[in-house]
Amino acid sequence: MPLPNRWLSSLLLRSSGHLVLFDCGEGTQIPWRTVGWGFRRLSTICLSHMHADHVAGLPGLLHAMANADRTDPVTIYGPPGTATVVHALRAIAPVLPFELTISEVESNAQFVMPGGAIGKVFNGDHRLPCNCYRLDFARGRRFLAEKAEEQQIPLDYWNQLQRGQDVTLDGRLIEGEALLGPPRKGLSIGFVTDTRPIDGLAAFLAGVDLLVCEGTYGDPADQQKAAERKHMTFGEAAELARAAGASALWLTHFSPAVSNPLEFRHNALRIFPNTTIGFSGLTATLSFADDEVPPQN
Amino acid sequence: MPLPNRWLSSLLLRSSGHLVLFDCGEGTQIPWRTVGWGFRRLSTICLSHMHADHVAGLPGLLHAMANADRTDPVTIYGPPGTATVVHALRAIAPVLPFELTISEVESNAQFVMPGGAIGKVFNGDHRLPCNCYRLDFARGRRFLAEKAEEQQIPLDYWNQLQRGQDVTLDGRLIEGEALLGPPRKGLSIGFVTDTRPIDGLAAFLAGVDLLVCEGTYGDPADQQKAAERKHMTFGEAAELARAAGASALWLTHFSPAVSNPLEFRHNALRIFPNTTIGFSGLTATLSFADDEVPPQN
Repeated sequence: MPLPNRWLSSLLLRSSGHLVLFDCGEGTQIPWRTVGWGFRRLSTICLSHMHADHVAGLPGLLHAMANADRTDPVTIYGPPGTATVVHALRAIAPVLPFELTISEVESNAQFVMPGGAIGKVFNGDHRLPCNCYRLDFARGRRFLAEKAEEQQIPLDYWNQLQRGQDVTLDGRLIEGEALLGPPRKGLSIGFVTDTRPIDGLAAFLAGVDLLVCEGTYGDPADQQKAAERKHMTFGEAAELARAAGASALWLTHFSPAVSNPLEFRHNALRIFPNTTIGFSGLTATLSFADDEVPPQN
Repeated sequence: MPLPNRWLSSLLLRSSGHLVLFDCGEGTQIPWRTVGWGFRRLSTICLSHMHADHVAGLPGLLHAMANADRTDPVTIYGPPGTATVVHALRAIAPVLPFELTISEVESNAQFVMPGGAIGKVFNGDHRLPCNCYRLDFARGRRFLAEKAEEQQIPLDYWNQLQRGQDVTLDGRLIEGEALLGPPRKGLSIGFVTDTRPIDGLAAFLAGVDLLVCEGTYGDPADQQKAAERKHMTFGEAAELARAAGASALWLTHFSPAVSNPLEFRHNALRIFPNTTIGFSGLTATLSFADDEVPPQN
């Protein structure tokens, strides 16, 4: 439930000029206004499931987007049942200046988002149909400019070659492929909430750079409660991150009974050291691992 | 729209152990949690109209009431169209431990709330059907205890007499009526938002002790905008309070463009001096005017 000083869990991601939102509980638009990213660039909303604390902020968000003059289409992904709920909530947001598509997706579904990221879905185990999400941001192969210079290829042709296309230059065939470096690791993130840590989930999340995962209960003594209510403890989330080989774990979606999640931090840290206890406004910039571009200040 | 540091307008009223809520935009339950009045005693919700900023918090509130173990019935009053919207929003609050009645009301409707207050309705003028509300809290006539003592009426009979009932004592008829003082003024409040200040509204609000009224625009230069968008300026709200003979005016429902409503305070004060510019958490206790009971500390 939304508490004074603790907003409901959601995740906002910005990439290639587009925003992607994961979950939209009551009030989500309020802290968003302090981030400064605006509402107009939101192209995609990924909903984990149809419980009120994950979707009740949707009508207000749609109004905020309309007020921000969004006109490009918007897609909402969610588990089966999403269309019915979103249509119902639109009773108070009936007229929008953008096309809104609702796409009900399940395990093995893949979708391409504006900007090119690939979304993937894995069915969670909750009291309602529930989706876990993974987003992959591919990285292009490096263009071997030094080789192009060596071969005295004029700059006019570089753009084509950078895309891997071949070019004929004074009767000489230049193979784009030969001017590209080896494949490079992209970036990936996982968003997992309101599910048990079921079989196959770690494999689905294999190697993600950041896993944003629920940790409803901090105390291992609440393990039974977590199992009954289809949630996870901090320890279970940490086990999942370790099994997935994630680089970093952010815990979120704390039970209202967990008034200070930091108290239980050690229950995750001893299993997965790179764990951050989430808080309102937690932000990070992910960069390609072998990026040779010096960081900007 | 809900802003960081400015919640959407709503009013929570407590009387005789019952709570009445006026309007429920996104996030309303969050500051409520800091008031300390709980959710379990909320018996009545009066909705002005079906725009999202006045009703989007309803599903979350219903969940909060369920979590607070409310089991007594709850009534939602609103203009025609309320039932359709509330039913739709219940897509994400389908199961409740209390009976929820939706009562669509219009001008001249009266309803009695748990605790005995009388609710009255006046059709506003907005872009959707819109209700203004008035609540009257009657005050019983004073029991003339000194007279009862003079007539040596045993205490056992006082309760009946206090309710104005007659009593026969050793063959002697004691008229309850004769032991009650003159009628006493009760308390009344008005809640008016998202409407133009139309004919008849001041009469409807005649003599209210507190008028909580929208003042969407502070600057009289926005008068035309107020008329077009079916809202009021501070000046118009102050004129309404003056015409109604209200004792006090609270302004609320400021346009997001009005970042500091206090700047425009003088536009209301010069017309209606007892004006307060609303803010999150503004609270007052209203007491019967001629109350002879010393105030409690």
